[in-house]
Amino acid sequence: MTLLDQIRVVLVEPEHPGNIGAAARAMKTMGLHSLHVVNPARFPDPQADWRAAGAIKIIESATVHEKLDTAIEDCGYVVGTSARARYVPIPLVTAQEFGELLKEGIGTDLPIAILFGRETNGLSNEELQRCNRHIRIPASEDYKSLNLAMAVQVVAYEVFKSCGELKNISKQWDREYASAGDVELMTLHLEKVCDEIGYFREGRPRHAMVRFRRMFNRLELDETEVKLLRGFLNHVERSIEKPTNG
Amino acid sequence: MTLLDQIRVVLVEPEHPGNIGAAARAMKTMGLHSLHVVNPARFPDPQADWRAAGAIKIIESATVHEKLDTAIEDCGYVVGTSARARYVPIPLVTAQEFGELLKEGIGTDLPIAILFGRETNGLSNEELQRCNRHIRIPASEDYKSLNLAMAVQVVAYEVFKSCGELKNISKQWDREYASAGDVELMTLHLEKVCDEIGYFREGRPRHAMVRFRRMFNRLELDETEVKLLRGFLNHVERSIEKPTNG
Repeated sequence: MTLLDQIRVVLVEPEHPGNIGAAARAMKTMGLHSLHVVNPARFPDPQADWRAAGAIKIIESATVHEKLDTAIEDCGYVVGTSARARYVPIPLVTAQEFGELLKEGIGTDLPIAILFGRETNGLSNEELQRCNRHIRIPASEDYKSLNLAMAVQVVAYEVFKSCGELKNISKQWDREYASAGDVELMTLHLEKVCDEIGYFREGRPRHAMVRFRRMFNRLELDETEVKLLRGFLNHVERSIEKPTNG
Repeated sequence: MTLLDQIRVVLVEPEHPGNIGAAARAMKTMGLHSLHVVNPARFPDPQADWRAAGAIKIIESATVHEKLDTAIEDCGYVVGTSARARYVPIPLVTAQEFGELLKEGIGTDLPIAILFGRETNGLSNEELQRCNRHIRIPASEDYKSLNLAMAVQVVAYEVFKSCGELKNISKQWDREYASAGDVELMTLHLEKVCDEIGYFREGRPRHAMVRFRRMFNRLELDETEVKLLRGFLNHVERSIEKPTNG
């Protein structure tokens, strides 16, 4: 499997089927094949087929999801495209830097998802918090609103430019990356423990979870680390319960 | 006049007005404004306006020519995009190299034209021979047929990347980094809590701390995050102690 085969383009709630087709064409010109679409307004649709031109196979083999979760749960690395600065920023790379990052080797053999948001308002904060990195396409301050398929084209172009001929060289790391699904379960466990130890009481905002989530995504946790953290949380829970049960 | 103002995009005999609009939008996102159209099949056209979105002014101020000659005669430098190798090759640069060439400085104060050919068969040999350089966009050998407006987007993106007013956007962060000392104290606190909750009992190796430590260093924690983690650990400790003291 080449690195390009590992890339999954995820379109989140696209409104115009034409953009799905144009995105598929953009992908194929840059050697990408795996398209996932979350809750599209209209798809399949003749407009998507027409705009796909020679990339119709990508449209035909696209996977449609009701929610984002299932589109990324088996992925080892998730990045989201964002034009806006967020109040809790996640490490930001330019499209080119993302290509270079891939070239250096992201340490996972699982799929690598690139999320693209809605035409009108992009990805939600919640969706962006599921990402290990954010990608920004440098654009004019006067008008930075790239069409959805154009954004796919530019990011795919940078990926192809860096990795066209490359196999995935895994970083020197001694463990497999944890899947996005496992990290999410661990995060929910932490939230539960925080509730149990009263961490969210006394006016401490649940906003803390946003920061925890960001930390975990930034970490690119490996499987052993997720197990370590789960073990830690289990022990905290057992330590709290014991006196009550005894 | 900035370098971006000097760039002129020339669409040669575009067949679909939608592509003219999409090209205008692509230009505007990358700070380009000057659009010339040679012998278009349909233009002006409502489809061009619609696809231009926020770049309608570029459409309204576009210059239409009957022939290529008048579109480039006042230019100091002309480049043409080409997917095919030509029988009489002209110096070829990639889109990125063209951006770098511009940055280094092309010795002219006259407009710099970038020609884009017809959707179906690009620029003719005669048209390509009018060019100082050819630009090629790296693309998949299997399918290198970028949509016209997509090609405009990629080339404009490379121009903007080299010549726009790019700030370094990868280092934005909203908090000060935590000192190594604070991270160390937090790590020791974690170790203490791990002892208190019996995490190191039952043969679980203290080696776990090595991995926790590596995680924290990889994170480059900020001050708020260290406080968050300390708060969490304090709460764990208080939850454990309460029954014993009560």
